[in-house]
Amino acid sequence: MRLEKLVGDRFKERPADCVIDSHALMVRGGYIKQVGNGIYSSYTVLRRITHKIEEIIRQEMESIDGQEVQFPVVVPASLWEESGRYFTVNAELARFKDRNDTPMVLGMTHEEPAVHLVREYGQTYAKYPFMIYQIQTKFRDEARPRAGLIRVREFVMKDGYSYHTSQEDLDTYYESAHKAYERIFARVGIPDVVSVASDSGMMGGKISHEFMMLTPVGEDSIVICQKCNYRANLEAAESLVINDTSAPPEPLNKVHTPGTKTINDVCEFLRTPIQVSCKAVVYQKAKSGEYVVVFTRGDLDTNETKISNHLQEEIHPATITETSSLIAGYMGPINLKGAVVLFDSSLKGINSLCCGANEVDYHYTGFNIERDYGPAEYHDFSKVSEGGICPTCKEPALTISRGIEVGNIFQLGDKYTRAMDMKYTDEAGNLNYPVMGCYGIGVGRLAASVCEAKHDDYGPIWPMSIAPWQVHVCCVRASDAETKVIADDLYSKLKAQGIEVIYDDRPVSAGVMFSDADLLGVPVRVIVSPRNIKESCLEIMTRDKAVSAKVEIGEAVSYVKTLVCELLA
Amino acid sequence: MRLEKLVGDRFKERPADCVIDSHALMVRGGYIKQVGNGIYSSYTVLRRITHKIEEIIRQEMESIDGQEVQFPVVVPASLWEESGRYFTVNAELARFKDRNDTPMVLGMTHEEPAVHLVREYGQTYAKYPFMIYQIQTKFRDEARPRAGLIRVREFVMKDGYSYHTSQEDLDTYYESAHKAYERIFARVGIPDVVSVASDSGMMGGKISHEFMMLTPVGEDSIVICQKCNYRANLEAAESLVINDTSAPPEPLNKVHTPGTKTINDVCEFLRTPIQVSCKAVVYQKAKSGEYVVVFTRGDLDTNETKISNHLQEEIHPATITETSSLIAGYMGPINLKGAVVLFDSSLKGINSLCCGANEVDYHYTGFNIERDYGPAEYHDFSKVSEGGICPTCKEPALTISRGIEVGNIFQLGDKYTRAMDMKYTDEAGNLNYPVMGCYGIGVGRLAASVCEAKHDDYGPIWPMSIAPWQVHVCCVRASDAETKVIADDLYSKLKAQGIEVIYDDRPVSAGVMFSDADLLGVPVRVIVSPRNIKESCLEIMTRDKAVSAKVEIGEAVSYVKTLVCELLA
Repeated sequence: MRLEKLVGDRFKERPADCVIDSHALMVRGGYIKQVGNGIYSSYTVLRRITHKIEEIIRQEMESIDGQEVQFPVVVPASLWEESGRYFTVNAELARFKDRNDTPMVLGMTHEEPAVHLVREYGQTYAKYPFMIYQIQTKFRDEARPRAGLIRVREFVMKDGYSYHTSQEDLDTYYESAHKAYERIFARVGIPDVVSVASDSGMMGGKISHEFMMLTPVGEDSIVICQKCNYRANLEAAESLVINDTSAPPEPLNKVHTPGTKTINDVCEFLRTPIQVSCKAVVYQKAKSGEYVVVFTRGDLDTNETKISNHLQEEIHPATITETSSLIAGYMGPINLKGAVVLFDSSLKGINSLCCGANEVDYHYTGFNIERDYGPAEYHDFSKVSEGGICPTCKEPALTISRGIEVGNIFQLGDKYTRAMDMKYTDEAGNLNYPVMGCYGIGVGRLAASVCEAKHDDYGPIWPMSIAPWQVHVCCVRASDAETKVIADDLYSKLKAQGIEVIYDDRPVSAGVMFSDADLLGVPVRVIVSPRNIKESCLEIMTRDKAVSAKVEIGEAVSYVKTLVCELLA
Repeated sequence: MRLEKLVGDRFKERPADCVIDSHALMVRGGYIKQVGNGIYSSYTVLRRITHKIEEIIRQEMESIDGQEVQFPVVVPASLWEESGRYFTVNAELARFKDRNDTPMVLGMTHEEPAVHLVREYGQTYAKYPFMIYQIQTKFRDEARPRAGLIRVREFVMKDGYSYHTSQEDLDTYYESAHKAYERIFARVGIPDVVSVASDSGMMGGKISHEFMMLTPVGEDSIVICQKCNYRANLEAAESLVINDTSAPPEPLNKVHTPGTKTINDVCEFLRTPIQVSCKAVVYQKAKSGEYVVVFTRGDLDTNETKISNHLQEEIHPATITETSSLIAGYMGPINLKGAVVLFDSSLKGINSLCCGANEVDYHYTGFNIERDYGPAEYHDFSKVSEGGICPTCKEPALTISRGIEVGNIFQLGDKYTRAMDMKYTDEAGNLNYPVMGCYGIGVGRLAASVCEAKHDDYGPIWPMSIAPWQVHVCCVRASDAETKVIADDLYSKLKAQGIEVIYDDRPVSAGVMFSDADLLGVPVRVIVSPRNIKESCLEIMTRDKAVSAKVEIGEAVSYVKTLVCELLA
């Protein structure tokens, strides 16, 4: 198409509200326009990209026997009541009542309609395994939309659901889905995405993986072992600490520690290593407001997700009021009142700790949990830190990187089939619940992630597989009759070859033309200009600068065609 | 793909709740499953059909320079406040508040986001005309969803919006969109769709057309002149009556008409032709409850849409309470209190009418509107009836048919650009509001309409252009080794030719196999059976029975390929 007719504005200035490059470039290049907080419209340029991404996803889902279906966006709340999620998912789930006062929700993931669709179909073992997927708009009322298309409230997502009669069959299929995801990321141009073990959150099930594109602007933290293959989301990474358990217990001793409200202050005051201190971190349960005090080794941070998963309910950092019995800055396990008490595994085996005495300006030293508090349960509530011990190879080789989650796969077990009473008859005639897997990829986020991975200061560098057009023809000085004729002819001939061409014959300067082309990021560019024509040639280059050639005018079409095919391969 | 793996059940019994055939066949054939009232999930069979329909629509939109974009499903209410529709559209608009208490709506048409997206782009005349469209899920909270996919609450729709600097340019484009729509309907297999003038309803603007597929099960009534080209939706069709104005006025006379509560009773009692009676029909304004009495010629029915459009607000049939001053069954224009009074054009020029006297058991005869009531405004508030006078050719040649609306196009004028302050600078440097057109097609409804038009008792007869698969291979008696080998081979070879094949090699009877094939409605069927193989041939037939041939096994692939190509052409 002719660039002159392309709807959408391109401009130079980086918008002030754009924190990451892909967001800025998509706004500057006429890809997206914000309609509301975390809600965007897409212009044609982006729609062409997302079409290609969708088609790649479709092909890879078909390659693992996925069957495309479509679930509704608006789902009767009754289905979510069946699964129980209507009550456990909070503000992210948009709810409304229809004209007949029937409660409805906007689907944010579609396990419930997925079970509903095949509940009758899957009544006998012979139908299994099968997988259905859709590519559909979803709405998740995120608290903090950010970074353009990376974290939005409304998004188009491919979500797939597989059904199996055994865990082994699910494992096998899950592995094939994992491989299909790797192929998808490779085909859209980001082959170096890594999969990491993740927290299953509200999805149910135990095993799940996130596919992470590593980038400093990512909002997820990923723990990677430099010695072995271990990778996990920081939310899910197991924190392993090895304590010195050889030191003999000291007697419990209450000491005056005036004005030492932080664990660092206390340890400095007492001249105690922070590794033998017991820090209190206070949360509140979201629904009841009940306090939860988590004790952990002083040098470690707590992991809210782990605590929330352990409690099976949402929590948030506490606001300690004057009427509570908690003494901020001086909390310790001994005689702590008015709170649920949890111990992190990092405290296990330390014979003498310092900790708060639940009294202003006082701490204990020589605190021994079993002796002075009683039998305690230890769980993993703390965050892995840089240099931490790998839970797999036990080497202190953990590093933490940032990444964008570009896909996820979950083993759901029978959580949904059991809750929604989907059963099949097995070969022996017994009724069983099938187990499920689910498989998600956000289309818009994937486009933005590719842009984030592949761009320079001037614009995106789209891989040929998902580029909005394959070739960008610039007719520099269209007012020159000969130039215009040659450029028009090239445009027609390339189109006739089935090549997707964006053609810029606007009466603008070469500077404007090239900066617009940079923003559109089309992989192959052909420049037709009076200067080139004088040399009987055209300039052909790739957006990533790998190719830059002067090609005889008569050869240009075949040269471009070859180049496009090479870049598609 | 192999039919054995196709997700979805097929069955024989017509579901009791299915009123029309397409609904019953789509349920019986495993195309759709109801999730809620007017909300459906689609199985793969239907998704394959809608994909093809979407692609045809896309191609035809591109052929009239449409650029595909995407608007959000969830739209901030503020945009609908800008246009004013937030206040004028009622219960069909689903509304909710997000987690921050911001009011949101679910887009049911997207004029507002469409203006929002190009408000900056379209600031100068040189950018015009342009057209953007999307294919996207919409939710319209219909009071009475019915007939399967014909009238649903959630649906996928192509909606396009064009922008112009003059009415002439809009007219030209509107005409090209009309032709593109005709091509779409022809390509999906229902070439005999007719366009009819329609009521613009809440859309604004004056000129609009609905594309109607004529069928007795349609829910719309369409007025068609048998003498000229006039066609209109009954809602919009101009009612023209020619009265005898030659009879001299008679004196006004109040007569006792005991127990005559209907206009038929009165006319019979008074031995007066119903064509010279004045009937009262009572409505109430939806918001205020105020009564509206419409007087029309006794033999005509009133048209609620016309009255509502005239009043510019919604109305409903009245409930006359005891405290109102209206005397049910005896209302007339003289001294009528407590209601807005409207006169239908059909009363114009009649010199002597009978009408109610606003007194129980009394009517007037010899009522002359101008003489006895005063100056009256006449408007068209009545329904056209069979045999009525054509407003174009003036012949009494109107007929009324039923139809399904499969698409619509509207001229919107500057309603939205003005309300939302979208302006462009014209060549003279003046600021103007562009005028818009909008263009809708429901994808699911179109699929159902084709099914309704093309089916027999056993299932749909899909046109090749949108069929879920092109060829259905039935391997009758797959337990026979030779049969299975030949069928497998045919399946592979057809696939290798790029033909879309559904392959049934299940160990079921020929009867089950054929009735399933009928329900899937694939246009070309190949039967591989021991009996055929004994004759060294295969049976090849079309679903519509136009072709039925025995073809030598070695010729089958090329025969099928030729047939598919012919049916695609």
